[in-house]
Amino acid sequence: MLPYDKLKKIAYGGDYNPEQWDEATWEEDMRLFKLAGIDILTLNVFSWAAIQPSEDTYDFDRLDRIMELVRKNGMKVCMATSTGAHPAWMAKRHPDILRVDFEGRKRKFGGRHNSCPNSPTYRTYAPRLAEKLAERYKEYDNIVVWHIANEFGGECYCENCEKAFRGWLKEKYQTIDKLNQVWDTAFWGHTFYDWDEVVVPNALSEHFAEDFTMFQGISLDYRRFNSDSILDCYRLEYDAIKRVQPEASITTNLMGFFKGLDYQKWAKYMDFISWDNYPQIDDSYARIAMSHDLMRGISHGEPFALMEQTPSVTNWHQYNALKRPGVMRLWSYQAVAHGADTVMFFQMRRSIGACEKYHGAVIDHVGNENTRVFREISALGEELEKLGSRTLGARTKTKIALMMTWDNWWALEYSAGPSRDLKYITEFTRYYEALRNMNYDVDIIAPQDDFSGYEVVIAPLLYMVREGEDENIRQFVKRGGTFVTSFFSGIVQENDLVITGGYPGKLRDILGIWVEEQDALPRNAKNSFIYKGKEYPAFLLCDLLHLEGARQIDASGYGSDFYQGSPVITEHKLGDGKAYYVATATDEAFYRVFLKELCDVKGILPVMDIPEGVEAASRENEKERFIFLLNHTNETKTVDLPWKGTEIISEQPAEKQLVLDAHDVKIVAVSKS
Amino acid sequence: MLPYDKLKKIAYGGDYNPEQWDEATWEEDMRLFKLAGIDILTLNVFSWAAIQPSEDTYDFDRLDRIMELVRKNGMKVCMATSTGAHPAWMAKRHPDILRVDFEGRKRKFGGRHNSCPNSPTYRTYAPRLAEKLAERYKEYDNIVVWHIANEFGGECYCENCEKAFRGWLKEKYQTIDKLNQVWDTAFWGHTFYDWDEVVVPNALSEHFAEDFTMFQGISLDYRRFNSDSILDCYRLEYDAIKRVQPEASITTNLMGFFKGLDYQKWAKYMDFISWDNYPQIDDSYARIAMSHDLMRGISHGEPFALMEQTPSVTNWHQYNALKRPGVMRLWSYQAVAHGADTVMFFQMRRSIGACEKYHGAVIDHVGNENTRVFREISALGEELEKLGSRTLGARTKTKIALMMTWDNWWALEYSAGPSRDLKYITEFTRYYEALRNMNYDVDIIAPQDDFSGYEVVIAPLLYMVREGEDENIRQFVKRGGTFVTSFFSGIVQENDLVITGGYPGKLRDILGIWVEEQDALPRNAKNSFIYKGKEYPAFLLCDLLHLEGARQIDASGYGSDFYQGSPVITEHKLGDGKAYYVATATDEAFYRVFLKELCDVKGILPVMDIPEGVEAASRENEKERFIFLLNHTNETKTVDLPWKGTEIISEQPAEKQLVLDAHDVKIVAVSKS
Amino acid sequence: MLPYDKLKKIAYGGDYNPEQWDEATWEEDMRLFKLAGIDILTLNVFSWAAIQPSEDTYDFDRLDRIMELVRKNGMKVCMATSTGAHPAWMAKRHPDILRVDFEGRKRKFGGRHNSCPNSPTYRTYAPRLAEKLAERYKEYDNIVVWHIANEFGGECYCENCEKAFRGWLKEKYQTIDKLNQVWDTAFWGHTFYDWDEVVVPNALSEHFAEDFTMFQGISLDYRRFNSDSILDCYRLEYDAIKRVQPEASITTNLMGFFKGLDYQKWAKYMDFISWDNYPQIDDSYARIAMSHDLMRGISHGEPFALMEQTPSVTNWHQYNALKRPGVMRLWSYQAVAHGADTVMFFQMRRSIGACEKYHGAVIDHVGNENTRVFREISALGEELEKLGSRTLGARTKTKIALMMTWDNWWALEYSAGPSRDLKYITEFTRYYEALRNMNYDVDIIAPQDDFSGYEVVIAPLLYMVREGEDENIRQFVKRGGTFVTSFFSGIVQENDLVITGGYPGKLRDILGIWVEEQDALPRNAKNSFIYKGKEYPAFLLCDLLHLEGARQIDASGYGSDFYQGSPVITEHKLGDGKAYYVATATDEAFYRVFLKELCDVKGILPVMDIPEGVEAASRENEKERFIFLLNHTNETKTVDLPWKGTEIISEQPAEKQLVLDAHDVKIVAVSKS
Repeated sequence: MLPYDKLKKIAYGGDYNPEQWDEATWEEDMRLFKLAGIDILTLNVFSWAAIQPSEDTYDFDRLDRIMELVRKNGMKVCMATSTGAHPAWMAKRHPDILRVDFEGRKRKFGGRHNSCPNSPTYRTYAPRLAEKLAERYKEYDNIVVWHIANEFGGECYCENCEKAFRGWLKEKYQTIDKLNQVWDTAFWGHTFYDWDEVVVPNALSEHFAEDFTMFQGISLDYRRFNSDSILDCYRLEYDAIKRVQPEASITTNLMGFFKGLDYQKWAKYMDFISWDNYPQIDDSYARIAMSHDLMRGISHGEPFALMEQTPSVTNWHQYNALKRPGVMRLWSYQAVAHGADTVMFFQMRRSIGACEKYHGAVIDHVGNENTRVFREISALGEELEKLGSRTLGARTKTKIALMMTWDNWWALEYSAGPSRDLKYITEFTRYYEALRNMNYDVDIIAPQDDFSGYEVVIAPLLYMVREGEDENIRQFVKRGGTFVTSFFSGIVQENDLVITGGYPGKLRDILGIWVEEQDALPRNAKNSFIYKGKEYPAFLLCDLLHLEGARQIDASGYGSDFYQGSPVITEHKLGDGKAYYVATATDEAFYRVFLKELCDVKGILPVMDIPEGVEAASRENEKERFIFLLNHTNETKTVDLPWKGTEIISEQPAEKQLVLDAHDVKIVAVSKS
Repeated sequence: MLPYDKLKKIAYGGDYNPEQWDEATWEEDMRLFKLAGIDILTLNVFSWAAIQPSEDTYDFDRLDRIMELVRKNGMKVCMATSTGAHPAWMAKRHPDILRVDFEGRKRKFGGRHNSCPNSPTYRTYAPRLAEKLAERYKEYDNIVVWHIANEFGGECYCENCEKAFRGWLKEKYQTIDKLNQVWDTAFWGHTFYDWDEVVVPNALSEHFAEDFTMFQGISLDYRRFNSDSILDCYRLEYDAIKRVQPEASITTNLMGFFKGLDYQKWAKYMDFISWDNYPQIDDSYARIAMSHDLMRGISHGEPFALMEQTPSVTNWHQYNALKRPGVMRLWSYQAVAHGADTVMFFQMRRSIGACEKYHGAVIDHVGNENTRVFREISALGEELEKLGSRTLGARTKTKIALMMTWDNWWALEYSAGPSRDLKYITEFTRYYEALRNMNYDVDIIAPQDDFSGYEVVIAPLLYMVREGEDENIRQFVKRGGTFVTSFFSGIVQENDLVITGGYPGKLRDILGIWVEEQDALPRNAKNSFIYKGKEYPAFLLCDLLHLEGARQIDASGYGSDFYQGSPVITEHKLGDGKAYYVATATDEAFYRVFLKELCDVKGILPVMDIPEGVEAASRENEKERFIFLLNHTNETKTVDLPWKGTEIISEQPAEKQLVLDAHDVKIVAVSKS
Repeated sequence: MLPYDKLKKIAYGGDYNPEQWDEATWEEDMRLFKLAGIDILTLNVFSWAAIQPSEDTYDFDRLDRIMELVRKNGMKVCMATSTGAHPAWMAKRHPDILRVDFEGRKRKFGGRHNSCPNSPTYRTYAPRLAEKLAERYKEYDNIVVWHIANEFGGECYCENCEKAFRGWLKEKYQTIDKLNQVWDTAFWGHTFYDWDEVVVPNALSEHFAEDFTMFQGISLDYRRFNSDSILDCYRLEYDAIKRVQPEASITTNLMGFFKGLDYQKWAKYMDFISWDNYPQIDDSYARIAMSHDLMRGISHGEPFALMEQTPSVTNWHQYNALKRPGVMRLWSYQAVAHGADTVMFFQMRRSIGACEKYHGAVIDHVGNENTRVFREISALGEELEKLGSRTLGARTKTKIALMMTWDNWWALEYSAGPSRDLKYITEFTRYYEALRNMNYDVDIIAPQDDFSGYEVVIAPLLYMVREGEDENIRQFVKRGGTFVTSFFSGIVQENDLVITGGYPGKLRDILGIWVEEQDALPRNAKNSFIYKGKEYPAFLLCDLLHLEGARQIDASGYGSDFYQGSPVITEHKLGDGKAYYVATATDEAFYRVFLKELCDVKGILPVMDIPEGVEAASRENEKERFIFLLNHTNETKTVDLPWKGTEIISEQPAEKQLVLDAHDVKIVAVSKS
């Protein structure tokens, strides 16, 4: 949980790197921060080399001065441990800290996020630095949260990792026979007789390319191992800080739908979730919301910190368009609407050298307050000051959940066949966007989670069903739940071994169908089906299925090809609930109609019924419900209100109608009493 | 030759991997195989690691049980030697068995087809295993054929290969002076003074990319050397088996137009040809037929084995569409029509792990006989049972040959200039498809072959003319033959050295022309020409030629550009024959008209004159001629029969007309007496 | 300066490689050369391996015979030093001469331009060979120029380069503190404590790809260092020759806009500039002219040598189209029009092996004079003979200069943001082409050059402003000059550190504007603006600027988006001059109108006012002005002459009108007296 006792309002600030500037500039920065309503600074993100100039020397002098200055100016601190990039001298002296890349090449010093997660050097020096920082600054009660390393990620394929991988496997599978069985090494004669025969799966062994492997089981375990190895590094630092400061609130900045790390597992070891929101230029607003909901989901509904976003431009997209006037504010409130209790930026002052110098900042290269961006930031600062603690800790309540796991994502996309275009997040997004665009609040959960709070659970492309997950779903349906899944689901167990006896494997009895074949359609090819009198396209994959208790609820099956007439949408009653199967990919129009029906039956309503392009999302606490109205369009929109409340940014009564200008935001608080 | 004494009918079965399954499953499999009419199983393809768990231990226990079971169930065996993938322990203990790739990277254990062909370890252990298998199972007379390794291919660039390459060169060229001359090393000062100065041509030396080299002569010899090195590995196993079983029929599964290995050379060392037919999703039926004809061609007309095809889907294409109902049967008979005397599948039971688990199989993951695919396989099994030995050994007789060599393919595509789009098989296919689509049977031969059985010989893009090949062509024409070649032919001799004195070099007197220049057209650019009153496009390359005895037979030369009017199609009388030159690439309409004329003059007829989309191909033996009618369309087609015969699948009389449903096949036997 | 005392006319010939041929062919070549009017041969370009067969042996025997033959036949010689490719034995014995590539891979022997520039072996043996050649052939007064190595270029990342880079840095920056400051290593904690911690920036350290670096400052310095390292190699050979022959004229063949080497720096060490002109297939004639003007520009207006061009085709383009009839002559004269005093080809006789065998030549594979190409060459030879020395040494006089530096090119394209499509030469070309297509003669200069001879100086995308360059521009404007620059200019100083305080940094006072933000437009997106009543597109980047003394001279700013109305084109009076800013990229129509106005105001006229597609360029000496009229179209064009003169190819009077056939050239000499 976020340390609300220390935060008191939506923390507003971000990454600040005074080490890049002279002390005169620091003073000017403090003036500007106050002008902008900034109250929190993330410090020390990349200072390892500065703080530890050699093996046994630590030099905190400059950081001490920075800390003093910041405290003196009444700012809170998000204290980073600086271990996101190791010092050059360390790379030279201890090359085990350098990674070996996917191509099998030992890297040299450079970049960031560059340390081998199984390097003895890294595992020694990184937690040691965290501990020293915790000790040195333990009296600073303006340190409100701790921030370990930075945007953990990447892979290493070095000898230390290879050895550690063998150890990890041995612990997991115990015997080499078990290993051979779960990896199905009888295929292509890959039988291992000794753990030492196992090599890391990369371009030199089992892979054609990063996402193309010849042995899915091996590669899948390496992904798990790599995520765990990096998590170990995080935990070593976490434990080091806690030894000194048991009350510290510790996080690391995640990255939304980041494929490399199993955040559902990571979340267990984080005091609260924080993340960096950098949408792609063509992301829909629903797609951005989906990432927020995932971050809220991995923390089981707890609010999270928006650790980074750009005030204006990024520098690393193909085309770095400016955030249009109002958009920074709009997206800040969107984060809050979905569960963020901080609004923070990368970066506070724009650096002058290296690759991020054209990334936007609160203080631009011109160095003063006379910019559009600074003015927008100041205005938002003022609003957040006024909002105070009112929304802090409020939670989203919904009866609808989408289900995802990293294991499923990894396994599905390692699959050789049936279609190169089969992408997990793409299919997942189709369902999410349909719901979000109708303004249903949605949770994103894991299959092993407790479903008891939900009435509709949707698991698009549930390719992998791990031990116990089918039973969780089965009980949910039997108790009256509505379950939806799609084509190519239930295919494999946790080691990517196919469940024989007919697809969708362990989901077969739940869904009441048998899928005999799957037809992959080339890009742009289409079949079709009719549902409630309207025709929809069928593309990507068409499952050919037989009813085994389920009933067909589309009008007449596929519209063409040799499987013309074969069912596309099926419904199966099980116990008190129903399980649905969508045998192909189709367009948003269908998902909207179909999912709305399922919700209607359960009496689940959207947050509000409002014009297209305006998002409505809700949070609530014991006293009030907050409805966030976010106008993502370039036009003025009028919203009809079904209840009376207060617009809490303007502190004006809200009833009957609200008018939102282009990119405008309104937050209506409705009393629950 | 295939061992007809043991086969007696079209062998029907395929790759079976019981090592992936428990013994209860084996029994069930036998039941299902018999149900489907399966009579042959390819065993032991990837069991090296299972059979040889360590340096000096061999464990045949499980294979013994499998062999017993299979024999007991009356199945024939295609016995594989298992050397297509080496054991993990061997890679660890003897790293010389691991390849170095094109990028110069030493590989680790992984994948298959992974052994260095010049590895002492591989050359010791692979034939040793083959010999042990031959000894252990020599009493099994249900082993009808032997199958060495699997789909040989790939390249290695390790130090052992480098040394062997130098030895190969020394044997071929004897002196370093000769080497310098044939590689033209005076260019760019590449003169070698010692064999040890020669390094393998790859990304670290002469290559920009796999197909872009700075020294064509070096790279061309490395291709030859690599093909020979792998052939040596095959031959070591071949000899090992023959030492024990001199009567064994030995093959290895080839891959049609596979660029890496010179199959024309390989064929000399194979008792019979076998190959794996996996068409690309957009291959025309003629393109598939062309591969069959090549496989028949390298065995000089002898029938071959269809060793693998998928019953339903592949898993490694971009989009793995299902084979439509009837298509598996249709393509099986197409193989037979072009010379196959077996119909075999990969795979018998669908594996549950690793990268081929979504590749189709006779027994699907559901594990029973109640699938569309199984039903189609059973139906075909029944037909093949009825057909018995009737068509076995029958041969295709034709007066038309297309000419190709791997040397020409390799050299042409290493050529730096004149056009990036110049692809050998593409141009070759234009000629083949025109003939096949008109239902002419075609042989595919090599330039050093005996042409005496042919009246029309076509050599598209005969870029390289090796020692003696021109004389073979010259004599063919003088004796009355019709010879056709195209632009960019006759340019180089066997070391890719240009033949000076005017293109097309040694073909100049045969063709009666001098080609002064070649103009490369950018993609989509077109010139034109008129032939027999019709205009055709000219693209890719336009040769600018002078008549030297030949006459221009197109109407008025190129239609535009500065070489407007320059001849496009020429005819030259030489002795009793004629030689034709086609100076540019054009579309199928022209090739059809032009080639039909040449055939008409010689009185060569197509197999039949039938509707577009229906293929007619023939085989014959001393007693009967078999006309295979293959409906590749989705529509019913009616075929007029010019003779009376018997449709041998249905055993019904065939006369006047036959009706073929979509994807249907008829085989009409006409008595020769 | 070119050695006019020895040349006496436009030298006509090119690269001749007799080492690839037997001596009988040499004699025939001499006959053909004379027939074609060839009078200069570039010899010995790739003979190192032949001349130095081992460590201590040199064998000049064959070269002696070649030199004798050539002298006997009255030919001049351009003597190459042969160090463009090292011998195979040397690579084997001294692997330090082999490069390590961008991926970190040690290369093996192969290709050319393959020596590490910091290899002790190369730096010993290359100048030693140059010196031996200079000694051996010092009595040959037909050697008119020396040609060091060949087309220097490429990069190396070996340990020797890494050490030398550290030395280069130490010499440049003196202290490690200074290094940390100029590279801004406080960013991402890259602080260096010791020079030995610096590693080469490549795929293993700071780079994602060749043009994507994480530390621009490091990568930029490595480019400079690499250019300097190779220059050192050139200079070692230069000095070696000069020790023996102080009067020698020494050059090396450059490559126009070649990104790898800072030719402005190189030019200081070359006795005269020479270069190889190989336009891309879709280059406009103006684009070709631009390269000539750059080559003239780096030699501060002195004429240069056209060292290589193809007589007909290249072999290494995607599609190697023939040069149409007349085009070889047209482009030869275009080179002369822009400052070339030689017309030379690669190659004299077409080689028969390796990768350049399909590159055009004076003597084709057919080996005789009966080709279109040979006839065109002979005809031009005859013309050049008649022209004699008349145009030699004449110079282009113009008041317009475009400004470029390699540093700016490198730094801009390493920039991470704002747009992936921001390419220096593309933007530079927009300005050049507009001027060239209106037939203004243009010089291409460096920002540190003396501007006193110019009235209009244009610096497109002057991203980097190095020490003193702004002052040079400021003084130029104050003294009455017209200065033009564009969006994203003035951003950084020489280490790619942003100049804080407001863009465009040190140019801000000169331009009288402040650029607050830059908006990157996705490809194909467009804004617009109106200038003098006409609307033009705005794309790529749109600067949002404030007037600070400048005035807006477009009609009403951007046409749309939130910065609608913001100025696009501004004019600022400073002293006696004016400075213009073009805030976006637009199309040629605008650049023509805008630049013509600026020229008109200054009374600068185009060479002539002639039909579109005909180029007019001028050179002059004390007595005459030569106007070159080049018809680049496929049609006949009529040109009105404003003065009387003589057409000096035909030696006919030229007045009132000249008619130029397709691809024709006329040179009108007008007396200055």
